[in-house]
Amino acid sequence: LATGDTHNLNIQQALLAQWESAITTQIQTHQLLSLPEQLILREQANTHGMSVGDGRVALAQLNLTPGCLAQNARKIWTVLQTAEALQLDLAVFSELSLMGYSPKDMILRFPFLANESLKWLDVLAQKTGQTHALVGFAEPNTTGTGKPYFNSVALIGQGKVQQIFRKTLLPSYNEFEDTRQFESWQYGTPVSTTWQENEKNTRVSSPVFELYGRRYGVLICEDMWQGHSPFKMPLYPSNPMDVVLSHHPDILVNCSASPSRQGKAEKRHRLCQFIAQQTGKPLLYVNQVGTLDEIAFDGASSVYTDTGECLVKAQSFQEDCRIIETDRLKCWHLHRQPTPVQPDSSLETSSSSSFLALGRADLPRAYAALLQGIRDYFKKTGFQRAVLGLSGGLDSSVTAVLLVDALGAENVAGFSMPSDLTPTQNRLDAQQLATHLGIHFCEVSIVDSLTIAHQNLASVCQAMDTCWPLRDAASNATENIQAITRATLLRQIGNTYKALPIATSDKSEFYLGYATVNGDMSGALAPLGDLCKTRVRELAKWLNQNRSSPDAIPEAVMSKPSGADLKRDVHTGKLVTAEDELMPYLFADEIIWRIEVLHQSYQEMLETPFWFEQENLVSNAKKEEWLQRFFKRMGASVFKWFVAPPVLMMDQGGSLAKSDYHHLITSQNIEWKGHSIEEMQAFINS
Amino acid sequence: LATGDTHNLNIQQALLAQWESAITTQIQTHQLLSLPEQLILREQANTHGMSVGDGRVALAQLNLTPGCLAQNARKIWTVLQTAEALQLDLAVFSELSLMGYSPKDMILRFPFLANESLKWLDVLAQKTGQTHALVGFAEPNTTGTGKPYFNSVALIGQGKVQQIFRKTLLPSYNEFEDTRQFESWQYGTPVSTTWQENEKNTRVSSPVFELYGRRYGVLICEDMWQGHSPFKMPLYPSNPMDVVLSHHPDILVNCSASPSRQGKAEKRHRLCQFIAQQTGKPLLYVNQVGTLDEIAFDGASSVYTDTGECLVKAQSFQEDCRIIETDRLKCWHLHRQPTPVQPDSSLETSSSSSFLALGRADLPRAYAALLQGIRDYFKKTGFQRAVLGLSGGLDSSVTAVLLVDALGAENVAGFSMPSDLTPTQNRLDAQQLATHLGIHFCEVSIVDSLTIAHQNLASVCQAMDTCWPLRDAASNATENIQAITRATLLRQIGNTYKALPIATSDKSEFYLGYATVNGDMSGALAPLGDLCKTRVRELAKWLNQNRSSPDAIPEAVMSKPSGADLKRDVHTGKLVTAEDELMPYLFADEIIWRIEVLHQSYQEMLETPFWFEQENLVSNAKKEEWLQRFFKRMGASVFKWFVAPPVLMMDQGGSLAKSDYHHLITSQNIEWKGHSIEEMQAFINS
Repeated sequence: LATGDTHNLNIQQALLAQWESAITTQIQTHQLLSLPEQLILREQANTHGMSVGDGRVALAQLNLTPGCLAQNARKIWTVLQTAEALQLDLAVFSELSLMGYSPKDMILRFPFLANESLKWLDVLAQKTGQTHALVGFAEPNTTGTGKPYFNSVALIGQGKVQQIFRKTLLPSYNEFEDTRQFESWQYGTPVSTTWQENEKNTRVSSPVFELYGRRYGVLICEDMWQGHSPFKMPLYPSNPMDVVLSHHPDILVNCSASPSRQGKAEKRHRLCQFIAQQTGKPLLYVNQVGTLDEIAFDGASSVYTDTGECLVKAQSFQEDCRIIETDRLKCWHLHRQPTPVQPDSSLETSSSSSFLALGRADLPRAYAALLQGIRDYFKKTGFQRAVLGLSGGLDSSVTAVLLVDALGAENVAGFSMPSDLTPTQNRLDAQQLATHLGIHFCEVSIVDSLTIAHQNLASVCQAMDTCWPLRDAASNATENIQAITRATLLRQIGNTYKALPIATSDKSEFYLGYATVNGDMSGALAPLGDLCKTRVRELAKWLNQNRSSPDAIPEAVMSKPSGADLKRDVHTGKLVTAEDELMPYLFADEIIWRIEVLHQSYQEMLETPFWFEQENLVSNAKKEEWLQRFFKRMGASVFKWFVAPPVLMMDQGGSLAKSDYHHLITSQNIEWKGHSIEEMQAFINS
Repeated sequence: LATGDTHNLNIQQALLAQWESAITTQIQTHQLLSLPEQLILREQANTHGMSVGDGRVALAQLNLTPGCLAQNARKIWTVLQTAEALQLDLAVFSELSLMGYSPKDMILRFPFLANESLKWLDVLAQKTGQTHALVGFAEPNTTGTGKPYFNSVALIGQGKVQQIFRKTLLPSYNEFEDTRQFESWQYGTPVSTTWQENEKNTRVSSPVFELYGRRYGVLICEDMWQGHSPFKMPLYPSNPMDVVLSHHPDILVNCSASPSRQGKAEKRHRLCQFIAQQTGKPLLYVNQVGTLDEIAFDGASSVYTDTGECLVKAQSFQEDCRIIETDRLKCWHLHRQPTPVQPDSSLETSSSSSFLALGRADLPRAYAALLQGIRDYFKKTGFQRAVLGLSGGLDSSVTAVLLVDALGAENVAGFSMPSDLTPTQNRLDAQQLATHLGIHFCEVSIVDSLTIAHQNLASVCQAMDTCWPLRDAASNATENIQAITRATLLRQIGNTYKALPIATSDKSEFYLGYATVNGDMSGALAPLGDLCKTRVRELAKWLNQNRSSPDAIPEAVMSKPSGADLKRDVHTGKLVTAEDELMPYLFADEIIWRIEVLHQSYQEMLETPFWFEQENLVSNAKKEEWLQRFFKRMGASVFKWFVAPPVLMMDQGGSLAKSDYHHLITSQNIEWKGHSIEEMQAFINS
């Protein structure tokens, strides 16, 4: 390159960076450019010799809300309008971007939403000029067979819809349910009509389009993942990548809505690298951002050269836009040697030690995902304020920190609601936490409420004991009423001040049913519902070390044993801790990990040593007792999962979030221990 | 036929009937036959010239529990052992009978369940002799591609697994989620291995098997429904029926697990008729029975002749067994002329009048389904007793009647929990209902609890008003606390006496969010959650007319306006009724019907007259006000659906049951009114 060229290049690079940040600001402020502003940008581009046809592409990751079409369309237009002014060739948006991914069954029950989105698509298309865009939308399936929609991407430009691309691989596992609403499309299927009935058989013939001399191959999310799903085998009979490649694209584009879970970003990165290397083609990867109920999308849209180098990576968990010069992504091998990449391998977990490693890993991402989850839930449901109970324990303390960082201290109020059982230390810890965080704080005794509740129950029992002579010896009414009384007060406060009460239960408690329905498990959202106790503890340490104001969580909270402070041991008079009643959390959490990640059976767990056993002497009888208790409690907890608030999905292997995992309440009596053939034969004849 | 033959035939018929009832008793009592009993049956059969090879087949509809393998296997063996003694050719069980349909994600997270069920299948197979059986099971997919399992049926007999059949059409809509766990199987796929690796490529080659000279074609549930799903178009690219027919079966067998909804039994009957007529082959249809959480299976297994006549129909909502002589089903056209059948047409609903007709239709089935739902939920979760609040209103009265009929009056306790707002009449009505039903009854005032709750809130507000100056003017804390206090007391009583508290909210209240979270919407089960208010009213009338002790629900309850008795009008001082606050239930329920059945948009509803408008003058402004209120409240209610207890699915078009319908809480701001193109253009530029 001549010096002059380098100079120009540097100026252009600087301009691109400047434009990227301008668009990102626009996205975040929802402001369109004024006409003069548009003209200035256009002139800037012209002055520096940049014009349509040069191969510049914008990758726009937006926080979209399924079904909120006007809002989504407006966001798309904000980017597109600027892209046009900048004389870019193309703006790429995420999967189903106009509708928002995923509309779930809403588009089945309310076909209005899909009809309306077609109108929006036309309105957007009509406004396009030379700059084109890839916009995702739910396309009515008019082929006469299959589910009512295709999960499609439209190429719009020059005032109209130019071409349509349809998703082939429809995931139907974990949080994915594409097969409920969408029909899979196989390129090469002879007859195909689009919803625009007058233009039959012309538009869905190829996954590749040519624009200003460059051929772009379009993949929609899962289309890139054949062979890399969480299952052992390839999930689908064919690989759409082969079809795309057979149409000789210069550049691959993937419009995605890929949820974030522990380790997922790294997995995705390796897959993108692998694909770019294997195909020798640059890859533009655009991902949705924002959390929808339980499911977080992390953005992190990326650009890979034809040797698999990641040149550009957008922000994670933020709306962002990047502009890339596609011509600079090719022939990268002339400059660099590729580093061979094996997809997925980094995330294989098989040894027990990785259970602990997993618990400590990925905390910055977890933190960002939690904040996005809380923020989006509040914003999209129209709330600003949160109330929660502060017990002086770990879960409520960590939850309070997260709420503060997501919503601002002024929007968080914590309540210490002691009973006679509450140790003074816990009240002080709660207060100290609140002081550290600068949140509103109030202590309200629930003693009077409990007295009345007990009186009422006693008067009922006087009558009922004659009707139903046998009381339940295992009744936990006395414990539950404490938790419910607290949750009730929080809900009243929430109602009064338009604040959402927040549930503080963690994933270990969910599995073990160690939380009270309508009590501490109730609330508008359960931020920690997919983090095991050991991981919450790691997160607490990380928060104390990494937040700008360190050590918000008092040392006493970090070190005290977990417990609900709901009852005393009848013999010792001491408060019963959670581990007294259940088992060591370290052990319980490893069971959860073995279930979700290793898919081990009861018997396999019994036979392989737990990490806990390395440092502690555990008899076989004790281990079996814990395993039995765990599985028994798990069976009885399914109802609690069923009525739980939304859980922010975090873990790699699985969660108890309703969008993620379906289990039957009525299957409580599964015999997890299993039977030998001999036992089976005997039982069948007994 | 000679007279002697007729005589023999009659005796054989009588014997069959006797045997059927013997097997049914066995199923219900879980008792195996003793060896002498087996010998007696065998001799009976021999004496009357009945032996293996004569073409007699048992259809066994069992109440199975997913994952509870020992229990399921034992039930299957009970039938199979007797079938062997009776020298039947074949016993047919329902879809996935050994595993129980549907195991949902449990078999993904716990592959142990599938492994264990293979052992059970072998144990059962080894015990078979000349009598064969079709047993459904989750077969590991060892083809190297796809989901981990096939939804399969094994033909077992002569001590081993003889052949395997796999489901082709996997439903993925409403309550169905087969695509999450199962891979579709196409007969004719060249290479196929079963999980029994040593016997490759031999066993899954044909959907037809020959047994004692008769060829049986095996369909698994949805395999029969191509073109008859709730969607407008055929859902699948091929029809497995064609494949089955190409293998020239003499008899069709369908192993099903087909959920019950309003009108479904009739629809299913017509489809079976249609298929038998179209193919000219007899059809044996076996369906699962029992309710799993929200989903009811109704049994009603049936046998159709080759002219589409329904010869045999097993009980609905009960375990049952029928024995059929397949040779008598053929050549039926020699005796009878077929009546042409159009599938589905009877259930097309398009006019507004059918909304009311639907509300009154099918009440006996609804009643039976509700009782089964309550019974199975209690039985399978290990409870016998129920507690509920009796407000003297319609919903709680109907719920009480259902609980009594499902569980027995001695297992039901009703509580009147008046506040200062509760009219005396309501207390009397509650008491009278309890007397009529003979249930335990107790009145407990919640006035003291409310006083304390208000005091606590007031003391919190004193502190909080300085932190958060603006209280929510629309706060319903005062109303909610009443409902929550009642639910809390019920939960305490439930804990104390090992009884399940039951939620009484109906579907209209679910849609309109007119129920309190942790309050009247909370409980272990919501029996009325899929019945609109107008339908609950119809059910109440039906109960009063058709139960053995009539008029259990007091007349005053039937006629009073619905209301939650939670607040007074500030001007009139009168209690605010539900319809004051919302809109006429008749109008709201028609909106629900138009959403679920007609899939109409806001605009379409505005433009077409409601039934309510025929008898009442409704201004356009008023109609629009109601529609807007409905959709706005619906959006804000999604969270309530998310944390609701299991809802017994009843309605034809759809429900708000979580197993049935997925909607996002964060999509609250959908603009249901939609926009004109001009509005869109303006908005995008604004």
